[in-house]
Amino acid sequence: MNIAERVLKGDRLAAARAITLVESEGPDAVDLLKEIYPHTGRAHRVGITGPPGAGKSTLTAELIAFFRKQGKTVGVLAVDPTSPFSGGALLGDRIRMSDWFTDPDVFIRSMASRGGTGGLAMATQDAADILDALGKNYVFIETVGVGQEELDIVNISDTTVVVLYPEAGDRIQTMKAGLMEIADVFAVNKADREGADRLADEIKVMLSLRKDWQGWEPPVVLTQGLTGGGVDELAKAVLGHMERLKSRDMLMKRRRKGLALKIKTIVDAHVKRSLWLGEENRQEIERAAERVAARRQTPYDAAAKFIDRLRNS
Amino acid sequence: MNIAERVLKGDRLAAARAITLVESEGPDAVDLLKEIYPHTGRAHRVGITGPPGAGKSTLTAELIAFFRKQGKTVGVLAVDPTSPFSGGALLGDRIRMSDWFTDPDVFIRSMASRGGTGGLAMATQDAADILDALGKNYVFIETVGVGQEELDIVNISDTTVVVLYPEAGDRIQTMKAGLMEIADVFAVNKADREGADRLADEIKVMLSLRKDWQGWEPPVVLTQGLTGGGVDELAKAVLGHMERLKSRDMLMKRRRKGLALKIKTIVDAHVKRSLWLGEENRQEIERAAERVAARRQTPYDAAAKFIDRLRNS
Repeated sequence: MNIAERVLKGDRLAAARAITLVESEGPDAVDLLKEIYPHTGRAHRVGITGPPGAGKSTLTAELIAFFRKQGKTVGVLAVDPTSPFSGGALLGDRIRMSDWFTDPDVFIRSMASRGGTGGLAMATQDAADILDALGKNYVFIETVGVGQEELDIVNISDTTVVVLYPEAGDRIQTMKAGLMEIADVFAVNKADREGADRLADEIKVMLSLRKDWQGWEPPVVLTQGLTGGGVDELAKAVLGHMERLKSRDMLMKRRRKGLALKIKTIVDAHVKRSLWLGEENRQEIERAAERVAARRQTPYDAAAKFIDRLRNS
Repeated sequence: MNIAERVLKGDRLAAARAITLVESEGPDAVDLLKEIYPHTGRAHRVGITGPPGAGKSTLTAELIAFFRKQGKTVGVLAVDPTSPFSGGALLGDRIRMSDWFTDPDVFIRSMASRGGTGGLAMATQDAADILDALGKNYVFIETVGVGQEELDIVNISDTTVVVLYPEAGDRIQTMKAGLMEIADVFAVNKADREGADRLADEIKVMLSLRKDWQGWEPPVVLTQGLTGGGVDELAKAVLGHMERLKSRDMLMKRRRKGLALKIKTIVDAHVKRSLWLGEENRQEIERAAERVAARRQTPYDAAAKFIDRLRNS
């Protein structure tokens, strides 16, 4: 059996190797994905994002517990070099999540960030497909940090959970605009701390200013990841969003949108690899710029040569 | 005589028509640029940027006066829908700049922003080439606003002047990082106001933290655009930078870098036009995303079809 066949039989080791393959972006990965792809699309993909320190991992561990109790299988992709799976987080988080390392129906994997070339979102989506093919009912995709990568999660998730916490303060101020747009569900975590209710109210006010929810107003759930408080309600909010997506034929619409972006990203990566990346290409563009700077050629004529190369690539 | 020939003879009306042509991005523009291109590269291109309200237009008007007194000819490209040339600015600015509307050796033109697709930077660079071919000794490129477009100016200017003013406060805080990198010369305008000296000191401190100036430490000049105070010193700082660029063979190096980016932008625009823009392309990508969402095709196979189309474009 090849790796793809083994993944489809539920082989965890094969899944781990398959994810390593997609991380390396080789042609083998494309072949593997081709083989498993018809068997994907079944898992519900839940993005979990928010600022560092919000307690996303702890909350994810509690969500795993909820879905395991219901007899569901779970995959987790933790995207970020500072995630608990690759070091840098609190020991408490790590221990809590590690409760699930020995459960054969839970697959946890960290994905290494490679600096915002779109490659990470691509590899993460491929890895989600692999866990989907492995038979997991739910795939959680956890991203840490502020910025584009965090917003990209919306394109690879069916449901996006934004986790905030009372102390986030200024950071949240700057994130608000983007997060308001991507959240399907808000978790105000560390809800025992002062300011949790105010933060929840603030989010609700901001949500009320938005007109076009397309039939879904994001619920705001108070949670306490450490005690498990509010986690049932959070899980139910996720399930509620999933049901809504399905009942309104929104799921496929949403996935189509994310997949259109993925196709574009793959094409863009091809153009970059063919024309701009690597020492030879760098020299080629430098020589072209030299001809143009010396006014021996217009920028448009120089560009035409690169477009020709694209035709022959 | 065609438009290009007329531009090369110094015909202002032809230059105005030529700029309209490059703004429309048609094939005629490419032909025109091809014809004038060997006759460009002589003008010194000075970018003038900074936050709204810094008094860039007033300062530019005073710089025109300085260079005209030296018998030099000047072109001005004002990039922004809120520039004084297209409405939205103070009457005072408009009147001051309009002093030069009737001088045949000064050519002033506003460029309409088209929303950050890179098209504006491209058209502005083409327009600078046209004013260069028209025989202007200096071409000023004025951009307003905060963000990528403002930072892009560095790629189309030989010398970049960043104009700040004491009241800018928070706005400057957020811009600092980017502006520190792109400024060859700082003007602290409205220098009669409180806080001007402090701002100048602040900029100098930040500059001192930077190590690699490649033989040029950006001077910080206090100016008063409304009275003309400090403008001679500012003009001399610009000329000083120009001399430094030339003496160290840095001018061509800098232009090559900007032109390499321009070539890439043209190629990217070709890819976008060929694959993603327009109703037909939009439908094509939607159908592809539908096949992929239905798991009839992998994203990589779908992308391969678009890459094939690029080969046949």
